[in-house]
Amino acid sequence: MHIGLVGLGKMGNNMRERLRDHNIEVTGYDSNPAVTDVASLGDLVAALPAPRVIWVMVPAGAITDSVIVELSEHLVEGDLVIDGGNSRFTEDFKHAELLAKTGVNFIDAGVSGGVWGLKNGYGLMVGGPASEVERVMPVFDALRPEGPRDEGFVHVGEVGAGHYAKMVHNGIEYALMQAYAEGYELLDTKKDIIKDVPGTFKAWQRGTVVRSWLLELLVRALEEDPEFEAIEGYVDDSGEGRWTIEEAIENAVPVPTISASIFARFVSRQEDSPAMKAVAALRNQFGGHAVKKAD
Amino acid sequence: MHIGLVGLGKMGNNMRERLRDHNIEVTGYDSNPAVTDVASLGDLVAALPAPRVIWVMVPAGAITDSVIVELSEHLVEGDLVIDGGNSRFTEDFKHAELLAKTGVNFIDAGVSGGVWGLKNGYGLMVGGPASEVERVMPVFDALRPEGPRDEGFVHVGEVGAGHYAKMVHNGIEYALMQAYAEGYELLDTKKDIIKDVPGTFKAWQRGTVVRSWLLELLVRALEEDPEFEAIEGYVDDSGEGRWTIEEAIENAVPVPTISASIFARFVSRQEDSPAMKAVAALRNQFGGHAVKKAD
Amino acid sequence: MHIGLVGLGKMGNNMRERLRDHNIEVTGYDSNPAVTDVASLGDLVAALPAPRVIWVMVPAGAITDSVIVELSEHLVEGDLVIDGGNSRFTEDFKHAELLAKTGVNFIDAGVSGGVWGLKNGYGLMVGGPASEVERVMPVFDALRPEGPRDEGFVHVGEVGAGHYAKMVHNGIEYALMQAYAEGYELLDTKKDIIKDVPGTFKAWQRGTVVRSWLLELLVRALEEDPEFEAIEGYVDDSGEGRWTIEEAIENAVPVPTISASIFARFVSRQEDSPAMKAVAALRNQFGGHAVKKAD
Amino acid sequence: MHIGLVGLGKMGNNMRERLRDHNIEVTGYDSNPAVTDVASLGDLVAALPAPRVIWVMVPAGAITDSVIVELSEHLVEGDLVIDGGNSRFTEDFKHAELLAKTGVNFIDAGVSGGVWGLKNGYGLMVGGPASEVERVMPVFDALRPEGPRDEGFVHVGEVGAGHYAKMVHNGIEYALMQAYAEGYELLDTKKDIIKDVPGTFKAWQRGTVVRSWLLELLVRALEEDPEFEAIEGYVDDSGEGRWTIEEAIENAVPVPTISASIFARFVSRQEDSPAMKAVAALRNQFGGHAVKKAD
Repeated sequence: MHIGLVGLGKMGNNMRERLRDHNIEVTGYDSNPAVTDVASLGDLVAALPAPRVIWVMVPAGAITDSVIVELSEHLVEGDLVIDGGNSRFTEDFKHAELLAKTGVNFIDAGVSGGVWGLKNGYGLMVGGPASEVERVMPVFDALRPEGPRDEGFVHVGEVGAGHYAKMVHNGIEYALMQAYAEGYELLDTKKDIIKDVPGTFKAWQRGTVVRSWLLELLVRALEEDPEFEAIEGYVDDSGEGRWTIEEAIENAVPVPTISASIFARFVSRQEDSPAMKAVAALRNQFGGHAVKKAD
Repeated sequence: MHIGLVGLGKMGNNMRERLRDHNIEVTGYDSNPAVTDVASLGDLVAALPAPRVIWVMVPAGAITDSVIVELSEHLVEGDLVIDGGNSRFTEDFKHAELLAKTGVNFIDAGVSGGVWGLKNGYGLMVGGPASEVERVMPVFDALRPEGPRDEGFVHVGEVGAGHYAKMVHNGIEYALMQAYAEGYELLDTKKDIIKDVPGTFKAWQRGTVVRSWLLELLVRALEEDPEFEAIEGYVDDSGEGRWTIEEAIENAVPVPTISASIFARFVSRQEDSPAMKAVAALRNQFGGHAVKKAD
Repeated sequence: MHIGLVGLGKMGNNMRERLRDHNIEVTGYDSNPAVTDVASLGDLVAALPAPRVIWVMVPAGAITDSVIVELSEHLVEGDLVIDGGNSRFTEDFKHAELLAKTGVNFIDAGVSGGVWGLKNGYGLMVGGPASEVERVMPVFDALRPEGPRDEGFVHVGEVGAGHYAKMVHNGIEYALMQAYAEGYELLDTKKDIIKDVPGTFKAWQRGTVVRSWLLELLVRALEEDPEFEAIEGYVDDSGEGRWTIEEAIENAVPVPTISASIFARFVSRQEDSPAMKAVAALRNQFGGHAVKKAD
Repeated sequence: MHIGLVGLGKMGNNMRERLRDHNIEVTGYDSNPAVTDVASLGDLVAALPAPRVIWVMVPAGAITDSVIVELSEHLVEGDLVIDGGNSRFTEDFKHAELLAKTGVNFIDAGVSGGVWGLKNGYGLMVGGPASEVERVMPVFDALRPEGPRDEGFVHVGEVGAGHYAKMVHNGIEYALMQAYAEGYELLDTKKDIIKDVPGTFKAWQRGTVVRSWLLELLVRALEEDPEFEAIEGYVDDSGEGRWTIEEAIENAVPVPTISASIFARFVSRQEDSPAMKAVAALRNQFGGHAVKKAD
C-alpha cells in the first residue's frame, strides 16, 4: 500500500517511520524542506496511485482546515482523506461535507500514544464509512500496537466518532494525571512520614489497583528528577479537555474530575489569581483580616 | 446585668463597647495591660456578682482551652462560661464537662459579623441549657442586631450546637465568597466586552437575585481599589471551613462548592504546586510537551 | 414615553404593570389573545410613535430570534429593539447586525429579580450605544428598584455586554444557591445536634456574613415546608449557567464552584447514574465488592 | 519460614494460599471454625516458632484493634505483628506503642490487589523498623508480584508509613475510577455518534495514554454487561478515601478530583438530596419555577 502523509512534525515523522517499518509505502509532505519528500501538496497527490489515501497529521484548527481545503482542490472521486490530528469532531462534519462534493471520502482518526507510538504503536479510534475503513486497514494495522486488533483499534462510528472518542480519551487522561498528581502532592507534603516518595510510586507498578502506563511514566519522571526541582508547576492544555467539558455541559453529563483537572491547569498558568484577590479583599472588608500587599 | 469579658482584641473590644452602649455592665480582662479593666482572671471573677457570667472571646484552640481551664479553678456552682470564639464544637463537649464538675454552666456562642458587629450587631447562634440561655438573654439582646430577635439570634440546641451552626455558617461563607470571586474573574477577563466591572457589581446591589451583604462589601472593596492592584491573591483560612468539610466527610454529605472554595485558598498560598509539577512532568514524558524550567 | 412590549408571560406581564405604574405608556403584544393589547406585531409597530422602542421579553433562543427577525421587517431607521430576555450574548451580535441593516438600533438588557421584580424592581444590566441607552432611560428608571440608579442599573458596554453580565450573574447565582444548599444538608443531617434548622437560617438574616436575599428566600421556603417534604430534589437549569462555564473554559478562567453547582443539578435529574454504575462495576471487578442489583 | 495469619476472609484466605504456594508455612486463625487451622489466638501463638510473626488481616477499626490487644497479651519480646488490613495510619502509632510495652514489634502493611492478588501478587507498602522488615522479607517476597522487588514492594518509612501510602493509593484509586466513569457516561450519552462504547474502551487497552489495569477491568465488566443493566449506580466507600481528604485538609493540599470522587459516591447512595431540595425550593421562591412534587 502506498499513502501520502501530510505533516512530518514530532508525530508525523514517527508515524512515517513506523509505517515504512511495516511495509507501507509513504510519501510525506511538510512545509519544512528539510523533511519533506515532495515539494507541494500537488506533487504529493501526483505521486500517489489512485484511488489515493492521504493521512493529514498537522495541528488541529486552522492548519488542518487549510490543508484539507487545499487537498479538496487536488483530489478526485474515490480518493480518501484521513485526519489523524486532534481536530474537534464538529470539524469532521464540515470536512467530510466539503470533500464529498467531489466524491472524496473522509475518515477521522483519533491517535493516542505520543512520542512512544513509534515503538509501542498508536491507539487508534476511527470514524467514517465501513468500506473505506476496511480499505485502509493495512495502514491502521501498521500503526496500531502489536496484539489483538480490537485492543488497539476501534471503528467507533460514522464521521466524527473517532475524534469524539479521542476527545473523551483526552478528558479522561487529564483527570487520571490530576489524580496521581494530587496523591503525589500529599505524599510529598508528608515527608515526615513518607521517606521514599519515588520508591512508593515505583512500587505501585505491579499488583496494585492504580497501576497504569501513566504511573510508569511518573516513575520515569521521578527517576530523572526525584523532587521535580527542574520543573515549574505550569501546565498547558491543548483543547480536547475543554471540548470534553463543553460536550458534557451540552449533554448534561456531570464531569467533576475532568473539570477539576482543567481548572487546576488554568490556575497553574496564572501569575496571580483575580478571583483570590477578590476573596482576600472580601475577608479584609468584613473581618479586618490582613491582606498580602502586592509588591 | 454585669458580666465579665475575657479577651479585648479586635472582636472583644468592640463587643465590650456595644454591650456598654446597651446598658450591660462589663468588666473586661486581657493580658494586654493597656486595654484590661482588671489585673487577672482571679480579679475578674472577684469583681463579678454571683452567679457570675463570663464571656470568653479569645482565639480558638489552645488559648481558649487554657482560659477555660483557669476559669474552672476560680468559678463556683451556678456560674456560667460563654465561649464566643470560633472553637470547634467538639471542644465544647470537653469544656462543658470540665466546668460541670464544679457545677459551672457552659454556653457556646457562634458570633458572626466581624468588625461591623459594633455598629450592626452580631449574628448569634448559641448552644446550651435553655435556662442559662434565658438568664443571659439581655446580653444576647444587646449584642444581636436591631429587629426581631429570631432574625439575629437562635438557640440551636444543647452544648456544641452554637459552634456547629457557626462552623456551617463559615463553610457557606467560604463558598459564597468564591462564587462572587469566580464571577469577578470572568468579568475581569472579558474587559473587551465588560467596560465597567466595579459598576456591574455595584448595580447588582438592588433588585437582583445575587444581592447580599458580601456583595456590598465587594462593591466597597472595588471602590477602594478598582483593579485590586494593591492586593495579592493570597487567602488564609482559619479552621471552620476545614472542619465543615471534615464533618461533611464524616456524615457522607457532598459539599463540592465548600471544598472547592477551600482548595482554591490552599492553592493561593503555594509558591509552586507539587501536583502541577507532576502533571507537567507527565505531559513531558508521554507527549514530549515542553515543560517550563524552574529558575 | 410610549413603548411596545412583546411577550406578556410571567415576566412580561409584571413588567407591563410596573411600567404603567411608573407612567410609561405600554402597548403589549402576545400570541395569547387573552392578554395581548394588539392583534399582531405589525399592529404593535403601527401603534407606536416614531422613533419606536420595542422591548422583547420572550423565551431566549428560537422564539426571541423569530420575534426579532419579524420586527426587523416592520421597523425603520431610528427605531430601537431591546432584548430583555436571557439570550446568549453571542445572539446579540447577530441581532444587532440584522437590525442595523435598516438603521434599527439594538440594546441587550439583562433583567434580574424574577417574580419579585414587580414589587421590588428589576436589576438591569444593559449593553448598546450610549445615546440609545440615554434615550430610553425613563424605561430603565421605571423598571429598576428604588434607590440610587447605579445600585440597580448599569450600562455595561456595547452590544452583548448586558447579557454577558447577566450570564455571569446567573452563574454566580447557581453557586450561591448551592452553597446554602450544602450547608442546609449538613445541618439537616446533624439533627442530633442541630435542633432547629429553619430557625438557624432565620437567625442568619441579620448581622451575619452570609445574609442575603437568597437566604431570605430560603427562610421563606422553610417556613412554608420546614422539611421540604413536598419537594423533590430535582433541579432544572435554563442555560446561563452552562454558558458561564463555556465562557470560563474559553477564557481559561477556573470556576470550580459554578461548575460544581451545575453538575449537582445534572445529577439531580438522573434516574440512575451511568458513571456510578461504572464505578460500582469496577469495585466489583477488583475487590469483589457487592453491587446493588438493578430491579 | 512459618507465620501466623489472623483472618481468613476473602483476602486472608487467598493470602494463605499464595504464601503456601511460595513455601511459607502458614497457620491460620479465624473465628469461623470452617476455615481456621487452630481454635484460638492463644493456640495460634503456641503453634508458632519464636520469635513469632503474626499477620493480621481483619477488618480495620474495632476488630483489628481487639485482635491486636488480645495478641499483645499472648506475644513476648522479639515477636512481630504485621497489620495488613486497611487501618488508618494513626491506629498504627497506638498499636505499635501498645505492643512495644512488652517488646513486641509492629509493621503496618498496605496491601493492594483485591481478589486478583492470589494470582497476580499483591502490591505492598510497609512501615516499621528496617531490621524487622528485613527479617520477614521472605513473606513479602511471597506475597508481592513477580518481577523486580521494588516494582511491587516498598519500605515507605517508620510505623504508619505503609498505611499512609496505602491510604493515598486508595484516594488516587477513587479518582481514577471516577475519571473513567465520567468518560464512560459521556460516551454512553452520545450513542448517536458513538456506536460501540464497550469496543472503544477495549481499544484503549494498547498504545493509548489511558491504558491501565482499571481500564482492563472496565473492559471485563462491559463484556459481562455491556449496558450495565444489572447494576445500580450505588457506590459504597470504605474509609481510605475519606481519610485521604481529611489528611489533605489537615495539610492544606488541594485534592479536587479525589474529593469530587467521594462526593459522587455520597450522592449515589442518596434516595433524594436535601441540598437539591433546597435549591429547587429557592428557584421556586425567586422565579416561580416549578418544583417536582414529592409523591
